[in-house]
Amino acid sequence: MFKINDNYLKLPGSYLFSTIAKKVNAFTEANPDKKIIRLGIGDVTQPLAPAIIGKLHDAVEDMAHAETFHGYAPDLGYEFLRSAIARNDYADRGCDIGADEIFVSDGAKCDSSNIQEIFALDNKIAVCDPVYPVYVDSNVMAGRTGTYDPKAETWSDVIYMPCTAENDFAPQLPEETPDLIYLCYPNNPTGSTITKAQLQEWVDYANKVGAVIIYDAAYEAYISEPDVPHSIYECEGARTCAIELRSFSKNAGFTGVRLGFTVIPKDLKCGDVALHSLWARRHGTKYNGAPYIVQRAGEAVYSPEGKAQLKEQVAYYMNNAKVIYEGLKSAGYTVSGGVNAPYIWLKTPDGMTSWEFFDHLLEKANVVGTPGSGFGPSGEGYFRLTAFGNYENTVEAVERIKAL
Amino acid sequence: MFKINDNYLKLPGSYLFSTIAKKVNAFTEANPDKKIIRLGIGDVTQPLAPAIIGKLHDAVEDMAHAETFHGYAPDLGYEFLRSAIARNDYADRGCDIGADEIFVSDGAKCDSSNIQEIFALDNKIAVCDPVYPVYVDSNVMAGRTGTYDPKAETWSDVIYMPCTAENDFAPQLPEETPDLIYLCYPNNPTGSTITKAQLQEWVDYANKVGAVIIYDAAYEAYISEPDVPHSIYECEGARTCAIELRSFSKNAGFTGVRLGFTVIPKDLKCGDVALHSLWARRHGTKYNGAPYIVQRAGEAVYSPEGKAQLKEQVAYYMNNAKVIYEGLKSAGYTVSGGVNAPYIWLKTPDGMTSWEFFDHLLEKANVVGTPGSGFGPSGEGYFRLTAFGNYENTVEAVERIKAL
Repeated sequence: MFKINDNYLKLPGSYLFSTIAKKVNAFTEANPDKKIIRLGIGDVTQPLAPAIIGKLHDAVEDMAHAETFHGYAPDLGYEFLRSAIARNDYADRGCDIGADEIFVSDGAKCDSSNIQEIFALDNKIAVCDPVYPVYVDSNVMAGRTGTYDPKAETWSDVIYMPCTAENDFAPQLPEETPDLIYLCYPNNPTGSTITKAQLQEWVDYANKVGAVIIYDAAYEAYISEPDVPHSIYECEGARTCAIELRSFSKNAGFTGVRLGFTVIPKDLKCGDVALHSLWARRHGTKYNGAPYIVQRAGEAVYSPEGKAQLKEQVAYYMNNAKVIYEGLKSAGYTVSGGVNAPYIWLKTPDGMTSWEFFDHLLEKANVVGTPGSGFGPSGEGYFRLTAFGNYENTVEAVERIKAL
Repeated sequence: MFKINDNYLKLPGSYLFSTIAKKVNAFTEANPDKKIIRLGIGDVTQPLAPAIIGKLHDAVEDMAHAETFHGYAPDLGYEFLRSAIARNDYADRGCDIGADEIFVSDGAKCDSSNIQEIFALDNKIAVCDPVYPVYVDSNVMAGRTGTYDPKAETWSDVIYMPCTAENDFAPQLPEETPDLIYLCYPNNPTGSTITKAQLQEWVDYANKVGAVIIYDAAYEAYISEPDVPHSIYECEGARTCAIELRSFSKNAGFTGVRLGFTVIPKDLKCGDVALHSLWARRHGTKYNGAPYIVQRAGEAVYSPEGKAQLKEQVAYYMNNAKVIYEGLKSAGYTVSGGVNAPYIWLKTPDGMTSWEFFDHLLEKANVVGTPGSGFGPSGEGYFRLTAFGNYENTVEAVERIKAL
């Protein structure tokens, strides 16, 4: 008789954003006349930039003719996209990353959940707390996290690194030595960042203890301050300890287009074995590449017109971030984030729990946000709002919250 | 110090089609004047049908305007596609499958390699021999296959079900009881099929012993004979024992577009736990949906124009199959397949091994095929040719082989 992977049964409740969607749907059904404003999930609202639309149409036409038709993509992704990434995201920032160290994928969610597969099951992970739930949940499914303590809402075999107002939302080096360290900067959910000097400490630490940093830079395009690193490879020594995950979802609005990439430098090794070769094997065996038309759309992101248009799009969302940040601050909320990231992190008022504030906001202001506790125990008492709405809705949502 | 998943190191050599690509590239570099004809990998060559191109352009336009822009897709896929699948692929064939039992994905390769994740590591798999390498390799990576015997080219914990000329390429029920049974009909690589009565025996067997059948029906569109089942759900009792994998790669030429789906009936359970809920959890946590524009392209496959155009496309490839089958037969080869599948399976001549024949064909006829032994030990002495080339090349390849 077949048996299931019972690690799945250890997962408490459903995936955070599925739970929120269900709650919102129930409210909408019960209150069909209310206009809900969604500042919860990090989904974009602005249409694709004209340069991308044009390239998509061209690529669709390529698929209409035998001479320009494209079947299976190369394992690592098309050269035209990988070299555009290597040049623009790395060489231009002084980072030494080759096009053949870049693996094109259908997004950072898949990559950040699949990357753990190439590591041993008894490796110990360290995560920031609060944290993007996918890092932990994918390790739970693999059986790497031990037992769950429902009261503390923590796993016995996970090292939690609290990020709270006390440490300015930047984690300390952990006391217990981890094997895999998940870092995300600019941070989801807190909207915080760290400086290049701070990140260099992590790189030095990882090289010293023999840990791998899985560095999620999905929000890199939102960095506005000069001393914040755009890539972990700006730090010396990162080629021997860091994997970087990138996404086109937030810088180019590709949440529904699906494109991302993972960088694994060939110097990152366990003994003689390059992690690059393991991930290449996984790509070859378990994946069939991002669609040709989508990879062409990715190429357009790096064209001069694409860059100009996307700079405006990011500015549009960052203006929303400013509206939220300043609006809530003026209303007496304690807020952070929103300067180098599209997320605003706020302290819930009057000692409310995160979910109490979620319900309060949904019912009284018809605004959807994300409860901080959904990202981990240290997120309790916090709440995340995103800048990805449209401007008019964002202004209205802030007015409604101020009026509470 | 971090450690790798050393199951990866157990994998002998690289993924079959990567090896072939490297050999062909080396030959091309050494012989730049030779015109290679590729009948190896199952990649299509005909452009997308006009109905699909039109729909792709429309969907790209949707993404250009805020009112019709689409961000993150629903976890299971868009309702418009899932209901088109449920109606056309299942209800119209008398199969009881709901739209909410269909999980849209980016292709059958991903699904067939990921599906093993929801099962326990000590489940025993049974595979046909020869077999599509992904089924076995994904289980090797997970650590489910025991040790490799390089001489026999088999894994200690895998049940092999030989499919050779002696049993008309249809496996017998295994003597040892498996937990997971991988079946693929019409078959890749042999091009064979089984009747509905034969498939019913497998369903009855799986229900009796408590096994799950993972049924890969990626080549369903190529069935030309009446008694061959298009879906395992045509068999009674399949809802309690079968998962079906489908692809748009071969029926609609989507190898570079990337779309597929998996069906998990809600009646398929281990104790109280529905496999549907586990796969839904995996989709929600580790995947972010197929692109909106690609799901719209999938919808066009089921439109009246789409159906008519794709029927012609399949007929085009099946004409190639006939050219290969009859050409090789007239030249004295022993051939099978090619009637309900786009693959022709031939016995290598003069006692050559599969790889000897691969080299022979590449060097002497400049034709690329796939060595049968790459699909498993019982594939030794066989060779696969695909009908997915264009007509002119296919005719020329057959002439070259006949001239050897």
